[in-house]
Amino acid sequence: MSEAILTISSKNYSSWSLRGWLMTRFSGLPFVEKVISPDDPAMRAELLLLSSSFLIPNLTHNGLKIWDTLAIGEYLHEIKPEAQLLPADLERRTRCRSISGEMHSGFGPMRAALPMNLKGDFPNFKVWARAQADIDRVTAIWREHLDLYGGPFLLGERSIADAMYAPVVTRLLTYHVKVDAQSAAYCKTIRAMPELEEWIEAAKTEPDDLEELEVEF
Amino acid sequence: MSEAILTISSKNYSSWSLRGWLMTRFSGLPFVEKVISPDDPAMRAELLLLSSSFLIPNLTHNGLKIWDTLAIGEYLHEIKPEAQLLPADLERRTRCRSISGEMHSGFGPMRAALPMNLKGDFPNFKVWARAQADIDRVTAIWREHLDLYGGPFLLGERSIADAMYAPVVTRLLTYHVKVDAQSAAYCKTIRAMPELEEWIEAAKTEPDDLEELEVEF
Repeated sequence: MSEAILTISSKNYSSWSLRGWLMTRFSGLPFVEKVISPDDPAMRAELLLLSSSFLIPNLTHNGLKIWDTLAIGEYLHEIKPEAQLLPADLERRTRCRSISGEMHSGFGPMRAALPMNLKGDFPNFKVWARAQADIDRVTAIWREHLDLYGGPFLLGERSIADAMYAPVVTRLLTYHVKVDAQSAAYCKTIRAMPELEEWIEAAKTEPDDLEELEVEF
Repeated sequence: MSEAILTISSKNYSSWSLRGWLMTRFSGLPFVEKVISPDDPAMRAELLLLSSSFLIPNLTHNGLKIWDTLAIGEYLHEIKPEAQLLPADLERRTRCRSISGEMHSGFGPMRAALPMNLKGDFPNFKVWARAQADIDRVTAIWREHLDLYGGPFLLGERSIADAMYAPVVTRLLTYHVKVDAQSAAYCKTIRAMPELEEWIEAAKTEPDDLEELEVEF
């Protein structure tokens, strides 16, 4: 078994990196974190070529390279079933994949208008109408699933769906977006996860001119 | 076991519908096809609300509703493992998910500039640079996997990845986009699938003012 390496980009700005990193931490798989800076000149050309789609985060493990966030989640679920990244119950598992997939391919206006920025704090931010429609859909998903399974996580227990929506939670907090009480309680649950706390602390001390780093876990 | 219903929209224009429909046909699960028209006034308001993300295609089966294309693929793979929608080998399965995920969340410029239009034929179409970058990345994925596994499909045998990329194949043909010989051969393989042939024939006779239809399979 070779050492697992998770390649991510900025902890402050990269919501996909956060998703993949949370999933990997949730799985219990030990891994080395490799941080690639978007500001690193050597990386810039590569990142420009990569712009058609997302090749970061990616996980290398036992000679395999997995370069899509949902594929990383499914892989970790297969090799670490005991972590229950996907619920054991078929209905919950199917809903977990549906809402994770919806986050994976949708919500472009929200992503563009409210970029993840963990160092930021914008109390008087104006949310554009199309971004608000996305937020309304996200909170409708949250309420539906919290009602169905009783919380505190979307499928009852913590799953990849919570990793997928965690960067939405941080956006709502960063931009002081008002949501219903049930969604606000969910945000509080997610924000209190020790893994997210650890990521946010690291993001806040992230230098602007990141070099490639390796951090042991 | 209740009857499976696959809800799709336009056969001519909806690439996501095509993906979900191909996966369902590949799985061997008998299903009723429910076609919802984007032109139907009663559907318009609903579709506008749905614009934050993709809720079509969706599959209902045994009381479950699955509304994301990748989630539909994973569900079908779970209930019909013999169809091998995902490869049995871990490396291939992981690559299948990575490249399917990359298609699922990426390639916005290609999608916008070369919309699926099976009735169309545009021999002198000018491909915008960012869309060309997407096409270059797609064909690089194709060549890499055809080389790795020897074709004729991306993972050797047919899988959900071929359903994910099928609408790219039809776009390349519709807009007469020049690609390398290996990618052109893959396009020929995909275009020759009887399921795709059947879909395209139906798309070509699709009326412009579709009513909700139900077709038995």
